[in-house]
Order: sequence, then C-alpha cells, then structure tokens
Amino acid sequence: MRVPARILRQVLNHSLDLMFGALSDGSRRTMVDRLSRGPASVKELAAPLKMSLPAVLQHLRVLEESGLVRSEKVGRVRTCRLQPAALQAAEQWIADRRAGWVSNLDRLEQFLQEEDQ
Amino acid sequence: MRVPARILRQVLNHSLDLMFGALSDGSRRTMVDRLSRGPASVKELAAPLKMSLPAVLQHLRVLEESGLVRSEKVGRVRTCRLQPAALQAAEQWIADRRAGWVSNLDRLEQFLQEEDQ
Repeated sequence: MRVPARILRQVLNHSLDLMFGALSDGSRRTMVDRLSRGPASVKELAAPLKMSLPAVLQHLRVLEESGLVRSEKVGRVRTCRLQPAALQAAEQWIADRRAGWVSNLDRLEQFLQEEDQ
Repeated sequence: MRVPARILRQVLNHSLDLMFGALSDGSRRTMVDRLSRGPASVKELAAPLKMSLPAVLQHLRVLEESGLVRSEKVGRVRTCRLQPAALQAAEQWIADRRAGWVSNLDRLEQFLQEEDQ
C-alpha cells in the first residue's frame, strides 16, 4: 500500500513541530550537544544541568517523542543516543528555506544587471 | 566596551529558544516558506492559512520577536521580509551538533580499523 503524499506531509509537519519544539529549550539543547559527542547515561546528561532528575527525565521524554534521541535501558543504566537522521530533517527544512531566499536574491541581481544593460 | 562571552552566550541561547520556538508551529513555517520566495504583505501571508487576520498577526509577532522576520508598514501595507542571517544561526546550531556526531563516528571507525590491524 502506498501512503498518500498528503499523509506523508502531515507526518513530516508533525515531526517538525516536535523537533523544533524540542530544540526551543536551552536545557534540551545542552543534552543534544552532549549526545553529539557520543552516547551518554541519564546521569551524564543531568551532570551539567541544575535541575532534579525527574525534570531531566521529562526533558528526555520530549527529546524522545520528537525522534531526536533514543534511549535504551540495560540493567540499571539508561543509555541515550542522538538520532542524526532526525536532526538532519530539521536542518534540511531550514536550509531549503534559506536556499529559496538566496536563489530569489540571485534572480533579483540578474534582473537588475539586465536592467542596467 | 567588550561584551563578556558569558553574556553573548546567554543572548544567543535566548535567540535560539525564540527561533526554534517560532519554527515549531506549522502555520509559522508556512509563513517562513512563503517569505523564502520573497517579501510579502500580511494579506499574502494569510492567504494559504485558514485563520483570522488577528491570529496571523499574532504568529507574525512571534516570528518578529525571534528575529526570523522583519516587517515595515508603508502607507496601509505592512511588508514582511525573511532575515536569512537569523535562519542561518538556527541552521548552524543543528549542523554543528550533527558534525560533532559524524566526527565522533569517524573516530570510532578509525579506532575499530586500528584494532583490526
């Protein structure tokens, strides 16, 4: 069964809501920053943050729901990992809008040059 | 007077909160998408959105407060423009985290190759 493009767009749109929402908080960006240097336990993620463990776990849940981070519990330790493909989707959305703006500027420049001739 | 790095970091951090927050809403992303193709009036921005004009103006305010968009009123028309430097700051933050993840992966690969030898 092929999924209609309209549905895929809705799913992507919802993902972008969650990913940008997750990145809109400084503590969660600190966690993503730490995970960009490799997997970490919840304790390691909490170390630079001035907050309770439940608060850290709440932020972790937001990051996991957005798809930016996954965690796995082995024994008593929960290890968190960054999901670079999700991070790339958010980056790509911005890059595409910036590219649109730049090509628009290029067209304007070309137009002005043609006007000058 | 030189601004201390700590203060600059706080300002950037606050900007990132506002920019990612602004991008976490589908209607606001639709507005940014439209503006990536060139300046637009509020009426043009509102056209594809199913919402009241006050709601559109509220979203525009969030975009302006984040620095992603600026608007200027000339006569009776308010014209909105994308601020690509702000967009680039948000993109760069993500790109740097992804780059960190990739270089970490490279180091792991190198380590495994050296182990194999």
